[in-house]
Parts: sequence; C-alpha cells; structure tokens
Amino acid sequence: MKISMHAMSVDLFVHTLSNLSAVLEKGIAHAKERKFEPAVLLASRLAPDMFPLTRQVQIAGDIAKNAVSRLAGQDPPRFEDTEATFEELHARIARTIDYLKSIPASAFEGAETRDIKIKAGDRSLEFKGLQFLQQWAIPNVLFHATTAYDILRHNGVHLGKRDFLGN
Amino acid sequence: MKISMHAMSVDLFVHTLSNLSAVLEKGIAHAKERKFEPAVLLASRLAPDMFPLTRQVQIAGDIAKNAVSRLAGQDPPRFEDTEATFEELHARIARTIDYLKSIPASAFEGAETRDIKIKAGDRSLEFKGLQFLQQWAIPNVLFHATTAYDILRHNGVHLGKRDFLGN
Repeated sequence: MKISMHAMSVDLFVHTLSNLSAVLEKGIAHAKERKFEPAVLLASRLAPDMFPLTRQVQIAGDIAKNAVSRLAGQDPPRFEDTEATFEELHARIARTIDYLKSIPASAFEGAETRDIKIKAGDRSLEFKGLQFLQQWAIPNVLFHATTAYDILRHNGVHLGKRDFLGN
Repeated sequence: MKISMHAMSVDLFVHTLSNLSAVLEKGIAHAKERKFEPAVLLASRLAPDMFPLTRQVQIAGDIAKNAVSRLAGQDPPRFEDTEATFEELHARIARTIDYLKSIPASAFEGAETRDIKIKAGDRSLEFKGLQFLQQWAIPNVLFHATTAYDILRHNGVHLGKRDFLGN
C-alpha cells in the first residue's frame, strides 16, 4: 500500500462512483415505495439553473474518466449523454468504472509533473498533474457525486452519509 | 512537486476550506443585496433531517482537522461549536487552516500505512492511512463543503462551480 497518482485517482474515483450507484439504487427503491415514476427524480434539481440528477451523474463520471485519461497520457473514450433511466445511468457508471480499471498503474509514472491543459467554459486552465488532481479532478468529481446525493436527499430519499462514503 | 500524504491531505483541505470561505462570502453578499438577515442562510437545510449550513461548515473543517491529525500522529485541538454568524464561521475556517498548515510535512512520513481507528456513530472503523484518506477523509470533507454550497445555491445565492473549485 503506497500513495501514488494511480491510487489517488483511479482507486478514489472507482470507490466514489460505486457508492454513487448504491445511492441511486436507493432513489429507485424510494420511487417504488411511494409509487411514483423514478424519472421524476432524474429530472430534479436543487435550483432552476443547476443541472438535474441525470446530468450530475454523467458529469461526475466524465470528469473522473477524462481526468484519469489526462493523467495517464491517454485519449479518453467519449460517452454520449443519452441516459433516460436509472438502469441506463447504472450502466454508464459501470462502463466508466471498467474504463478506469483498464488503465495500468504504470501509465501514471511521472503523472504528478505532467503538463495538463483543459478548457472550462470560456477559460483555458493549465496545471501540473498533482495540482490538477488536488484542485480540479478530485473536488470536481466529489462535487457532482455529492450534489446527486443532495438532490435525492432533498426529495425525501432515505439516505445517510454512510451510503455516500460506502463501507 | 511530488505526491505525498501531506500534499493530498493538508494542501487539498486548505484549498477546499479557502474556497468554502469564498462561497460563504457570496452568501453574505446575497443577504445584503436582498436585505434579509444572513443568519437565515446559516439555519437553512436541504432536508428537515439534514444539518443546516453552520453545521456543514463546522463538520467540513473538523473532519479535515481530525483526519490530518490522525495521519500525522498528533492529537487534534478541539474547537467548540459556538459559531452563530458568518464572521465567526470565517474565523473558524481560518483557525482550521492555520492548524493544518502548522503540521510539518515530515510528520506524514509513513502515514500511508499507519493504523487508524475511528468511531462513526455506532460503528468502529479501521483503516490503513492511505485508505483512510481515499475512502474517509477526502470524500467526507468534500461532501460537507459541497452540501454547504448546495444549501446556498438552493437558496438563490449567485454561485457557480468556479467558486467551489477556486482558481
């Protein structure tokens, strides 16, 4: 057990996304119990100009996928944003996790000093790999995973932080 | 620039907490603009059985403080939860950041394999240092910082993810 760019990106994101799947599962269970259409939750938002649940889940996975690709010096696969059901979101998360796990730890050699440039809206940002992981990738993935949780929690889904953190 | 337990805990949490202060600042500005008592925001929640904003901020800082102490093999200082204003929350965050920065990087030597036991509610959890950082400390601090942001955003405060991620 040794700290590495691989451990702090792939392992952390696989854990986060696995827990996010479990959190979504509780959303489905809640909709069934209350007998409403689960898609209502997928379209829920915390503010009119924030993204709804579906998009939060897509973005959490995409940032993980794209950030890990950049750190490993690979071209990320592109996933179309077509999910319309919880089942499809689960499949999207599973596909993202498979991709993250497919990158060998050896690809992260020297990743902490790699130059990384990204476009964020109208900005062009430049990082060294370590700073990119600390200040961009990790907070960004966890921001969207938490917001997905918060949307469900705000809508009455039975969740506790334990679901978010996993076991 | 090298990856280390210190870089992935102290540096990451100082960044997160500094951005959280900037996010809170926008909450004050919004209350002033709309001419309502800022304390209304401090007591806001996303669900009746979730913690309000003040507590989210206190917990984000406390988890950072306590996790870093454990990783560095130190006893964390205890901060009383007495904050009733935004100004006091800012001071609490500043005090937490000062503490985080006071721990020398050398105290984290071998932190990745350190045995860490914590109590979480009715559970007793055991980790190795690296796993504690990946699965407990980082997601937990970011969970509360994001939820603080989400509470403000839900209440109409003018915020974007850029405020959360910082520059």
